[in-house]
Amino acid sequence: MPVAWSTKPLSQDTKRMSYNSPMKEARKMSDAAREAFQAAFGDRFSTTAAVREHHGADESPYPACPPEAVVFVRNTEDVITAVKLCNQYDVPLIPFGAGSSIEGHVLAIEGGVSLDMTEMNKVLNVSPEDFSVTVEPGVLRKQLNDEIRHTGLFFPIDPGANASIGGMTSTRASGTNAVRYGTMRENVISLKVVTADGKLIRTSSHARKSSAGYDLTRIFVGSEGTLGIIVEITLRVYPIPEAISAAICNFETLASAVQCVNQIMQTGIEIGRVEFIDAQGVKAANKYSNLSLKETPMLLFEFTGSASSVNEQIEIVQEITKDNGGMDFEWAQHQEDRNRLWTARHNLYFACLQLRPGARAITTDVCVPISRLAECVTDTANDLEGKPFPWSILGHVGDGNFHVLMMIDPESPEEWALAESMNNRVVQRAIEMEGTCTGEHGIGIHKMGFLKMEHGEDAIHMMRLLKHAYDPKNILNPGKMVSWDA
Amino acid sequence: MPVAWSTKPLSQDTKRMSYNSPMKEARKMSDAAREAFQAAFGDRFSTTAAVREHHGADESPYPACPPEAVVFVRNTEDVITAVKLCNQYDVPLIPFGAGSSIEGHVLAIEGGVSLDMTEMNKVLNVSPEDFSVTVEPGVLRKQLNDEIRHTGLFFPIDPGANASIGGMTSTRASGTNAVRYGTMRENVISLKVVTADGKLIRTSSHARKSSAGYDLTRIFVGSEGTLGIIVEITLRVYPIPEAISAAICNFETLASAVQCVNQIMQTGIEIGRVEFIDAQGVKAANKYSNLSLKETPMLLFEFTGSASSVNEQIEIVQEITKDNGGMDFEWAQHQEDRNRLWTARHNLYFACLQLRPGARAITTDVCVPISRLAECVTDTANDLEGKPFPWSILGHVGDGNFHVLMMIDPESPEEWALAESMNNRVVQRAIEMEGTCTGEHGIGIHKMGFLKMEHGEDAIHMMRLLKHAYDPKNILNPGKMVSWDA
Repeated sequence: MPVAWSTKPLSQDTKRMSYNSPMKEARKMSDAAREAFQAAFGDRFSTTAAVREHHGADESPYPACPPEAVVFVRNTEDVITAVKLCNQYDVPLIPFGAGSSIEGHVLAIEGGVSLDMTEMNKVLNVSPEDFSVTVEPGVLRKQLNDEIRHTGLFFPIDPGANASIGGMTSTRASGTNAVRYGTMRENVISLKVVTADGKLIRTSSHARKSSAGYDLTRIFVGSEGTLGIIVEITLRVYPIPEAISAAICNFETLASAVQCVNQIMQTGIEIGRVEFIDAQGVKAANKYSNLSLKETPMLLFEFTGSASSVNEQIEIVQEITKDNGGMDFEWAQHQEDRNRLWTARHNLYFACLQLRPGARAITTDVCVPISRLAECVTDTANDLEGKPFPWSILGHVGDGNFHVLMMIDPESPEEWALAESMNNRVVQRAIEMEGTCTGEHGIGIHKMGFLKMEHGEDAIHMMRLLKHAYDPKNILNPGKMVSWDA
Repeated sequence: MPVAWSTKPLSQDTKRMSYNSPMKEARKMSDAAREAFQAAFGDRFSTTAAVREHHGADESPYPACPPEAVVFVRNTEDVITAVKLCNQYDVPLIPFGAGSSIEGHVLAIEGGVSLDMTEMNKVLNVSPEDFSVTVEPGVLRKQLNDEIRHTGLFFPIDPGANASIGGMTSTRASGTNAVRYGTMRENVISLKVVTADGKLIRTSSHARKSSAGYDLTRIFVGSEGTLGIIVEITLRVYPIPEAISAAICNFETLASAVQCVNQIMQTGIEIGRVEFIDAQGVKAANKYSNLSLKETPMLLFEFTGSASSVNEQIEIVQEITKDNGGMDFEWAQHQEDRNRLWTARHNLYFACLQLRPGARAITTDVCVPISRLAECVTDTANDLEGKPFPWSILGHVGDGNFHVLMMIDPESPEEWALAESMNNRVVQRAIEMEGTCTGEHGIGIHKMGFLKMEHGEDAIHMMRLLKHAYDPKNILNPGKMVSWDA
């Protein structure tokens, strides 16, 4: 079952009603198609309203666009069968994992069938010597780490939600560990994919590196279900570090905190993680997680390695923070204190929601070259000043990636519109600074216009050529990422 | 001018004559095409025999396949002009950098024009704060490091030859630093590419990470000039480590050396580099570089980081080597000793050539999952036992990537055939072990059959669809990597 951040039944969810539906004209399933699915899947082919509604919504601001039916697949053979039927009967197919997308990836905007992958949730292989695991796409990230913990290995990619590995692969997800371990782009070794005509391919060998042909793996990573259906994922995993320590440091301004991180990175120290939280975010964390942190812009560090190298990192970082106006550098050596800080960071979304009971949080997601981050964050904060809702800026500052959370009144069309226009400004600014419209959340339907703005028509044309070549009938998650027509 | 490992004039190079020509039927340039090129490029359009012959050969075993003409481009506008003319007149176009390919990438097997990029050799931008540089494709890797050294940064990817960055991007190159810094796949941030119809695109923003659309960057990295012409490359660079130390350790067998590296990696220590050299290679290095290393299988380590972390790494590695039957662990703290060891490693190709004066070295290149490396290397050594030429196995052992150098008599068709059949066996074994037919050299024309063996027909079909979509007239380095027809 999907892990949703909202627990409100969709039919009572006013925010989804205040937003225009992105529904296009549905390509209706024929009776013959329905019968063929029924014959192939029996009661794993469902057309009940509740199941359809559930699969037609995600954490994006859009009203639900339910598919015509949902197919619950259990293995690769099921996926091949479903894809072949969709190909034969011209039925759109939308893969569905944890349902935690916030950009509208899973909405059935052209109708069709939702392919529920949640039962494909087995860890198929763990190879400690190769630092690799092979999983089915429905495995959730926390589940994966639970299942491999006994080997002394872990999988570092940690988006906010407990997303599925299939969804994370499809959106090129990352999280707080990317500065040290990279994103899904760097951590997928190989995929098995069912193509639009129902063939099963392996995108690459299991070697750590290869110069053998076009990089099919990277073509499918981040393709949001529009080029093929991922049925198996081989990932890199890493030894759990010998020593881990955390530290916090307060700053007068956003800009000085960001500059400080730049200087730390110039030394070549490999920090485990470094997160930026603004004063409002710290305030929210204090309240929600019962902490008593000083309520100014703050950096939250994690240092990993051997015991002595962790100590060394802390010394150097403490020195640099001092030079940059950092105050009250404190480090948490004990696991308990460290966990409390990082759990507070992971709960910031919920903490911020509590800043305004009954509110909805709208999240932006941009990434800029690090040299432009201080300016981008400062300009964004200036833009937000005086807005009629609480907001907070948090960021994976070592990557140049940051989010604005805006806690809006879901009953207010004005606040929805204002949040959307703030999102537009943040994205446009990031693109002007040679950054990207999405660091880790993906395009879905929400950012299709920005994708064009970022890449330009000619590059979008190259993306479209790829889509046309790999999905000539436009059945794979149609209407997402790149429009079919120019 | 290209940096070639061989200095023999091609016409006296018997090895090239003992090999069958891969030349296909040339698509002859029309008089109109010649006139149009002449008009656009003047004396930078050359049809002289020496220039053509030079551009039709690389370090592969094939006889030269000269293009019909060579165009010397100076900037992106020139490239666009050349591509548009090729598109208009249906003329094959082959980008040419340092000419150091060993798989036949630059041979004009269907005739056409060679696009000499060596004058596009400027470092366009260095951004220390972003750890990035932007270069033209003709910049050589050593030149790049010379030009940025004063910033305290370096670019780690180091194939054997002093290759061009454009060529390295096009073959997804790596080298001794990949275990620590990744390959070209991980280190290209963004590209500017001229498409087959002469449009200029940027493949991505300059953000360190992005989820914005299909990964156009990774589509062009490793595409060997068959999908577009790369005219600008933005790369990640890294701070030069504070401390660097080297160590060597001898082992009784190849297998025990490899197993030792596996155990070291299990600890999570981040080694700078670790290279494997067999007894024959050590012997060659002793002679060529005037060293007195013990002539058994050997590991050569590099440790980087802060002074104390380097010491810590050495301690742990020393301990593990001892547990694995390592002998005579010696470390070289002084830069001079360290450089001597690593220079000897980099000169191994030349050193091995001296094992048999007048010989030609044939190099294989496979990469397997690390868990299979010891077995793969041992089986390969057994295969080579008793062959009528000297050979040596060396490897980037932390990645599972290794090479066999076979020093054959270029006058002997039997030795050529034997070396080729050894290459076949090594590749087939690697593929059976879930590895790849090329870790870092690429496909070119030499490994097209192996590409199919590794990926299977259905995956090759996906590659072919991409080629057809991006190069519908088949003018970009035609006949390489993936055959046009099934």
